[in-house]
Amino acid sequence: MADSAMPASSTSPVGAADLAAVWAAVRERGPLVQCLTNIVVAPLTANVLLAAGAAPAMVDNRHEARGFAAVASGVLVNLGTPYDDTVVAMREAVAGAAAASTPWVLDPVGAGGLPWRTGVARELLGTAAPAVVRANPSEVLGLAGGVGGRGADSVDTPADAEQAARRLARDHGTVVAVSGEVDHLTDGDRLLRLGNGHVWMTRVTGVGCALGALVAACAAVTEDALVAAGAATAAMTVAAERAAAASQGPGTFAARLLDELNALEPDRLAAQVVVL
Amino acid sequence: MADSAMPASSTSPVGAADLAAVWAAVRERGPLVQCLTNIVVAPLTANVLLAAGAAPAMVDNRHEARGFAAVASGVLVNLGTPYDDTVVAMREAVAGAAAASTPWVLDPVGAGGLPWRTGVARELLGTAAPAVVRANPSEVLGLAGGVGGRGADSVDTPADAEQAARRLARDHGTVVAVSGEVDHLTDGDRLLRLGNGHVWMTRVTGVGCALGALVAACAAVTEDALVAAGAATAAMTVAAERAAAASQGPGTFAARLLDELNALEPDRLAAQVVVL
Amino acid sequence: MADSAMPASSTSPVGAADLAAVWAAVRERGPLVQCLTNIVVAPLTANVLLAAGAAPAMVDNRHEARGFAAVASGVLVNLGTPYDDTVVAMREAVAGAAAASTPWVLDPVGAGGLPWRTGVARELLGTAAPAVVRANPSEVLGLAGGVGGRGADSVDTPADAEQAARRLARDHGTVVAVSGEVDHLTDGDRLLRLGNGHVWMTRVTGVGCALGALVAACAAVTEDALVAAGAATAAMTVAAERAAAASQGPGTFAARLLDELNALEPDRLAAQVVVL
Repeated sequence: MADSAMPASSTSPVGAADLAAVWAAVRERGPLVQCLTNIVVAPLTANVLLAAGAAPAMVDNRHEARGFAAVASGVLVNLGTPYDDTVVAMREAVAGAAAASTPWVLDPVGAGGLPWRTGVARELLGTAAPAVVRANPSEVLGLAGGVGGRGADSVDTPADAEQAARRLARDHGTVVAVSGEVDHLTDGDRLLRLGNGHVWMTRVTGVGCALGALVAACAAVTEDALVAAGAATAAMTVAAERAAAASQGPGTFAARLLDELNALEPDRLAAQVVVL
Repeated sequence: MADSAMPASSTSPVGAADLAAVWAAVRERGPLVQCLTNIVVAPLTANVLLAAGAAPAMVDNRHEARGFAAVASGVLVNLGTPYDDTVVAMREAVAGAAAASTPWVLDPVGAGGLPWRTGVARELLGTAAPAVVRANPSEVLGLAGGVGGRGADSVDTPADAEQAARRLARDHGTVVAVSGEVDHLTDGDRLLRLGNGHVWMTRVTGVGCALGALVAACAAVTEDALVAAGAATAAMTVAAERAAAASQGPGTFAARLLDELNALEPDRLAAQVVVL
Repeated sequence: MADSAMPASSTSPVGAADLAAVWAAVRERGPLVQCLTNIVVAPLTANVLLAAGAAPAMVDNRHEARGFAAVASGVLVNLGTPYDDTVVAMREAVAGAAAASTPWVLDPVGAGGLPWRTGVARELLGTAAPAVVRANPSEVLGLAGGVGGRGADSVDTPADAEQAARRLARDHGTVVAVSGEVDHLTDGDRLLRLGNGHVWMTRVTGVGCALGALVAACAAVTEDALVAAGAATAAMTVAAERAAAASQGPGTFAARLLDELNALEPDRLAAQVVVL
């Protein structure tokens, strides 16, 4: 946990105040986030959105996905457990989001290591630019078609994936947010590095996936998708530090994480976030 | 939280003792509740039933749904994340429940705002009368085809929905339980208003959906569906008040809610429920 | 909770040290466990694997299930909420596991009482021998085609199911692990009985199902499937005893169970396990 918000030497393109302002806007405006996500993380994802003051709506069937994406504030597409039926809904949701200019977030779980969903991820990415791609290093490398992509587990570091992330961001006109001990976020030009978090985030299923939903909530309240991804990352990782300090292990941590997100005031976020 | 169980002036058609008796019967008899529900709330729903002493069985495939509804004590159909495949199973379950006179509960999540599932909800409602429809105000208005139904989020109040609820109850020979700060429950004639609860119930995904399952458990042990819906609502909202008092936020609240449901003696329910 | 690790009179074919060694190997090697499981228990299952130091991967679609089973360390097939689509994926996963000699575990939820899935379970069992079948007594009786199988709830005792379990194990060249107050595990010849646990394990959905995943993790690090099933059972039940002592009910117990699994050192497992 950090003592100061930002080193004096930081040349970050985004400041703690920018991140806190977006977090404040989410809490005030309560964006409606449509989630097409997986059966493992759906409960935590909805609870994270509720704790943040946003409104989750898991509309992931082929009949309603397109229409709902046009009225939602943001859309998350997460490839954790894709099926033939839900992949059709994902295509519909992305088309609906694109037509209505609803910001959408892609979480390409397992890209690189699993061929079918890698194809789905690339297809969705090619259909319409997401506001943000949120992924672990292996998935970024896998999606970019580089040397990485060794499966669902990330065995690469965010620094390894930095060049691939920049390229992916530029090629697709998106922001790529790479999770890790230090989170690396880039729009292809600017690079934002954030240093909060706790190892128990990797011992609870779905923290990264729920972060993707939080990114969609933040992208609904700002035009700057890099700041949106940064605000969501900062909120989740600062809350995680606070939750870990009050927990006995990953089980109690998961419950406390929601408490801390719910209680996280923008001022506290600004004071505790480590912008590197 | 209320200081007294019932105002001296109450003209409620149902008393605290009636609710407590049904709650006692659930705990003693442990009804088997078949749940066809959504991917977000399935874990909490099962855990709420277990905490209440009931037995959950998530039999939601097209091959087994009808047969199981004939042997289950109660059936819940929740439209949170319907798919083509599970909607077929819902039709089968309702047909099986109707044929065997198994009480079933409809939770029309998102009715009104989402057209496809609104049609499914109306179709199921027309197939066989559920014992209880449990919904938020917007869903009641959406299902009744009135002016409401602005999406998955409820932006209406139970009082707004009261007339629609009465009409829906009369037209379909069912009980309508409308959740809100004050819960309004009606069989078209009688009106039961309950005043317990806590705001964190709206900050945890699935509390309302799990309540639907609890209603099905209660409907399995009494002929009076209004009392069944009231007993489930009372148990959940009283447990919520007790849980909130011992929690730091919505995450720890969700865990404590199960503890309190598990520990909730009928006498305590009778003493703490606020029948308005 | 037991005072001593093993009665002096024990004639168990497996000792506490054997179980602890497998548990240590799981924590050190972090096996990758592919889970094809149900919508109710998927979150807890993933969290239990993470707490144990293993890596969950819920690859349960027809396109990727076979290929992933060839690279996974272990595979779990759980029949809690089977659908036409996921049953195809289960067949693929079992075929992939068999071809690559990846150990797989069958959890035949509801076998006996529910005809369609009973057929699926038998079909999978006949395709390739699982390393372990993990089930409750009713499911063992139902799967063996005996007199039991009265539904998803177990109304039989492990002792009732012991002969059926031995026969099932011999007929299929597998280990059968029957959960109950005393857990009975057999490879058809040897019988291992374990005496830890807590009643709240039956008041939280998915503890048994998550145990199946833990068995798959253990089967990935030892050739002796009886010891694997024993190690997983011992870890879960010892952690449960410790968690219950620090909890107020089933909700807080579920969170603490993950804390305790995460903190469970092999030495402590060896000291606290009750081998009967």
